Amino acid sequence: MEISEIASGKMFGGYNRRYKHFSPTLGCNMTFHIYYPPAPQPSHKFPVLYWLSGLTCTDENFVVKSGAQRAASAEGVALVVPDTSPRGLNVEGEADSWDFGVGAGFYLNATQEKWKNWRMYDYVVKELPSLLAESFPQLDTTRASISGHSMGGHGALTIYLKNPDKYKSVSAFAPIANPINCPWGQKAFSNYLGDNKAHWEEYDATCLVKKFHDVSATILIDQGEDDKFLREQLLAHKFEEACRNVNVPVLLRMQPGYDHSYFFVSTFIDDHISHHAQALRLP
Amino acid sequence: MEISEIASGKMFGGYNRRYKHFSPTLGCNMTFHIYYPPAPQPSHKFPVLYWLSGLTCTDENFVVKSGAQRAASAEGVALVVPDTSPRGLNVEGEADSWDFGVGAGFYLNATQEKWKNWRMYDYVVKELPSLLAESFPQLDTTRASISGHSMGGHGALTIYLKNPDKYKSVSAFAPIANPINCPWGQKAFSNYLGDNKAHWEEYDATCLVKKFHDVSATILIDQGEDDKFLREQLLAHKFEEACRNVNVPVLLRMQPGYDHSYFFVSTFIDDHISHHAQALRLP
Repeated sequence: MEISEIASGKMFGGYNRRYKHFSPTLGCNMTFHIYYPPAPQPSHKFPVLYWLSGLTCTDENFVVKSGAQRAASAEGVALVVPDTSPRGLNVEGEADSWDFGVGAGFYLNATQEKWKNWRMYDYVVKELPSLLAESFPQLDTTRASISGHSMGGHGALTIYLKNPDKYKSVSAFAPIANPINCPWGQKAFSNYLGDNKAHWEEYDATCLVKKFHDVSATILIDQGEDDKFLREQLLAHKFEEACRNVNVPVLLRMQPGYDHSYFFVSTFIDDHISHHAQALRLP
Repeated sequence: MEISEIASGKMFGGYNRRYKHFSPTLGCNMTFHIYYPPAPQPSHKFPVLYWLSGLTCTDENFVVKSGAQRAASAEGVALVVPDTSPRGLNVEGEADSWDFGVGAGFYLNATQEKWKNWRMYDYVVKELPSLLAESFPQLDTTRASISGHSMGGHGALTIYLKNPDKYKSVSAFAPIANPINCPWGQKAFSNYLGDNKAHWEEYDATCLVKKFHDVSATILIDQGEDDKFLREQLLAHKFEEACRNVNVPVLLRMQPGYDHSYFFVSTFIDDHISHHAQALRLP
């Protein structure tokens, strides 16, 4: 498996590095970023926080805009930031919408022939962790947590609920928390997964938490009260209610005045990094 | 003078706000950003830190990438971030180079007829502060400091040295510290200012510090050692040497491994905000 480093920049004593590789899961070249904190000694292995980004993003947005590296450096947690969909496959119509296709993989495995390369679930849960374990000795991928924003918050919550053995903790910023009941989710799921709504529920955090509720670490969610997508698309309260019904510990913090942007993410990212660092330190 | 707010987003308890206005100095519409920290009470007036950006930047780069708002919020300092040149004037060739014309105003007043609108010095030193004093009662423009990156570091140093009464302190990241002796500066100055090199010296920090050395606050400069522009374009050591020759207090911190990017700026921005906050608190 060939992986090439295509960019590197020092930040907060560590390094942002960007990599390119061919993904057999997705059938195309993919890029991702790793932020390495400063290493106390050369043999040190960092625990990993996966960050899943939202609609229209690439693996760059979080790295450039969030300022997460400051806390990641202080806490000694590596950040792994994949892209949000396959790219460059030239599937007809793949770039016609900003909320579907390119930049909008929704972290699922598509079942519809046309979108067969859209397997971001397998890419994030299987391919990327194996590739990291094989080729990045600085990372301890057995200690991993997951977080994300918007579509990426949906990805983090659903991936965590389905794989509690793989991740120590989860958090989300303004997640699409109940996609089967919102226009973004309905558009994506009907196209990627077809009409069988039972299948849709496998990628809906609010449905999944009813089945997979063996959750010990508190799920941390921040949500801006002035987020224009809150009431129609994100539906954080639906997820919170489902968690409460099955006694899953959830902390939904409604943040007055905040919108859906990275200004919101960067304001609260330190709390999330610290939440994950604590879980990752546990034996 | 009509000023319209064109964007607003909450961050670290305060607000990033973007404004648009017609600038009589430059003869075109201009945008700028203000970050307001959270106000302890409605009548509170914040001191101001002007941030001047580098080549190719607009008023957005610093706001989106630096993470400076975290420290500005904590220290109670407002950030004022202008654009880097006039725009939309359709001067022939204005957008042909990334290092001259649009996005490359060099914070000077051009004397050559073709570039007569390029008066970023007057815009930053005169027009913008008056406009803020008139229309932004939340700001105390009598308490102001100035900083910037690359071309903006050149702007901050030269503007400070020529106006020690107007600014309490100055700092810079990887400034173009001796523009008359580097290709970026020579290209810009010959086009904007003509062939008279005596005139060039009026906008060269290393020359100016020989004339204006009544400086009490330490000049803080961070410079990445792996900055690919250091030896040919930036010449930080020339400025440091000139300061030492006239006993101007300067702290040039060479930062091993850092490049010219905003990853470098965001790593050290807290130190700069704190440097200015201290000077701005003095009576």
